[in-house]
Amino acid sequence: MTEPRFDVVGIGNAIVDVLAQTEDDFLASHDLNKGTMTLIDADTAGKLYDDMGPAIECSGGSAANSIACLASLGGKGAFIGKVRDDQLGEAFRHDIQTLGVAFDTPFAKDGVSTARCLIFVTPDAQRTMQTFLGACVELGPDDVDEGVIADAQVTYLEGYLWDPPKAKEAFVKAAKLAHDADRQVSLSLSDPFCVGRHRAEFLDLVNDHVDILFANEEEILSLYEVDDFDAAMQKVRGHCKIAALTRGPKGSVVISGDEVHVIDPEPATPVDTTGAGDGYAGGFLYGLTQGFDLAKSARIGGIVASQVIGHVGARPDIPLKNIVEKALS
Amino acid sequence: MTEPRFDVVGIGNAIVDVLAQTEDDFLASHDLNKGTMTLIDADTAGKLYDDMGPAIECSGGSAANSIACLASLGGKGAFIGKVRDDQLGEAFRHDIQTLGVAFDTPFAKDGVSTARCLIFVTPDAQRTMQTFLGACVELGPDDVDEGVIADAQVTYLEGYLWDPPKAKEAFVKAAKLAHDADRQVSLSLSDPFCVGRHRAEFLDLVNDHVDILFANEEEILSLYEVDDFDAAMQKVRGHCKIAALTRGPKGSVVISGDEVHVIDPEPATPVDTTGAGDGYAGGFLYGLTQGFDLAKSARIGGIVASQVIGHVGARPDIPLKNIVEKALS
Repeated sequence: MTEPRFDVVGIGNAIVDVLAQTEDDFLASHDLNKGTMTLIDADTAGKLYDDMGPAIECSGGSAANSIACLASLGGKGAFIGKVRDDQLGEAFRHDIQTLGVAFDTPFAKDGVSTARCLIFVTPDAQRTMQTFLGACVELGPDDVDEGVIADAQVTYLEGYLWDPPKAKEAFVKAAKLAHDADRQVSLSLSDPFCVGRHRAEFLDLVNDHVDILFANEEEILSLYEVDDFDAAMQKVRGHCKIAALTRGPKGSVVISGDEVHVIDPEPATPVDTTGAGDGYAGGFLYGLTQGFDLAKSARIGGIVASQVIGHVGARPDIPLKNIVEKALS
Repeated sequence: MTEPRFDVVGIGNAIVDVLAQTEDDFLASHDLNKGTMTLIDADTAGKLYDDMGPAIECSGGSAANSIACLASLGGKGAFIGKVRDDQLGEAFRHDIQTLGVAFDTPFAKDGVSTARCLIFVTPDAQRTMQTFLGACVELGPDDVDEGVIADAQVTYLEGYLWDPPKAKEAFVKAAKLAHDADRQVSLSLSDPFCVGRHRAEFLDLVNDHVDILFANEEEILSLYEVDDFDAAMQKVRGHCKIAALTRGPKGSVVISGDEVHVIDPEPATPVDTTGAGDGYAGGFLYGLTQGFDLAKSARIGGIVASQVIGHVGARPDIPLKNIVEKALS
């Protein structure tokens, strides 16, 4: 077998983030559920944007953020996701391609605009997300390029893809193609409420189709409907080849069969936690596809997450390669 | 006379900034003149954007940034400038209106897109700007609302307006309306090369039409074609009622007739100097229109500038009111 063209191909909702600093009062007065992601329609997005303070726009999307981090580390990434041919779609395309990521999903030529995620960052650095899926609902199985999937060591899927109906079909097709080509399938559970919406299907995926699972503590508790981390960890054990469970300031735990690693967090000064989990997954998958062991891969994940949360926005603001090399040396 | 509705109305190019961290090599290989603003056409903007790293988008424009700072301090601001009815134009409108600034210039319904300024931020926190003026070229005298000008204590104009031909007419009309209503006219010289392009006209403006002048050291040296700051300062003395001259890490000097104030800089950790001068002008005009003396107004200008350069982007990322009150207490 020749060397694969890509280390990881990510499939996800292609979203531009609209970020504003916000006081806690705003969340309360607008019934926003702190720390989570809620789907909203275009009208609600318009009204909420009217009430939102001055914002900045930057490319986001969970799997896209992970692939951006992987590329910034020097990994070979590809991304599949749907934007419209509008200014935000063009910015999304620019930001990921300029990192060297292969992104060739055709733009939607009509219909709703590129997806936006209104992100309210509170003084505690927590982020609360309200997503208008926009053109993401147009992503379907036809957008999944068989050649790309077959030529990537890992196909990485975000749980959020389970929300737009056609994207779920793309998800299933990609997972099947990857396994048919003897590649690995990775899934991020994305959000505890997203797990709640699709628990039965996610359990089936984790039991039978996912090789590498990413989840934070809330998500894995939600998946197994248990109350403590250790219980959830025992449940996931044996179901996926690898489960990487993030615990915010408590670090992460990686489980693979009998192998268990408890990894300390990296030092961080949180400004905006948007993208922390995405960064961890991108760093971990970079390590794994470079052939590093699980503990080192988890450490790279933690280093990337700590960089991402140190500034506003979900993606690294400077190249990650040197940062990680320095931290590991 | 009833109390004016506005403290300051700004007239300027309405621009969305596209900011990326860049190495010095990039400037050299693309013949970019560090620390300055260069006008580029749509094709050049497209090519340069292709080469630019991952970016974030945030509202900019010199006078618009100043008015945003004034509003964030609690001042009553208005802004006149032209965007198109596209996604970037909508973001520009949102970001300034949400601060409470009156912004009612009609959107351009056709023609070129909203203006973009590609900003390359080097590791020394210096910014190098390449501006595609886009819809700004559509701003003309008809967009200058006589009622707004007459009802603002100060009409604040950016020197960059001298670049698009029709905007110059808007500039001249606004200055005349302001003086006819016994209001004050303020000008920022914007950029040393902008001064070079329009020196004779700027000298005429400063000599006969401007009450409050803002310039940084390079700009005032360029205006009078002299080599040292003191020489420039002696030249400007007596021409405007007030000249506020900024000197970066050396602080600022304010001259008004026989009154001269030399103001120390505020402590700052520069990350991105984009908008430093705009912030100073916004803070200074806020102080002045609140009835504070020149020294206190200059100090507020310095505090705002130090806040703005502490993060990526030209506008404050948190409300300025408390910051300034705390710094002055």
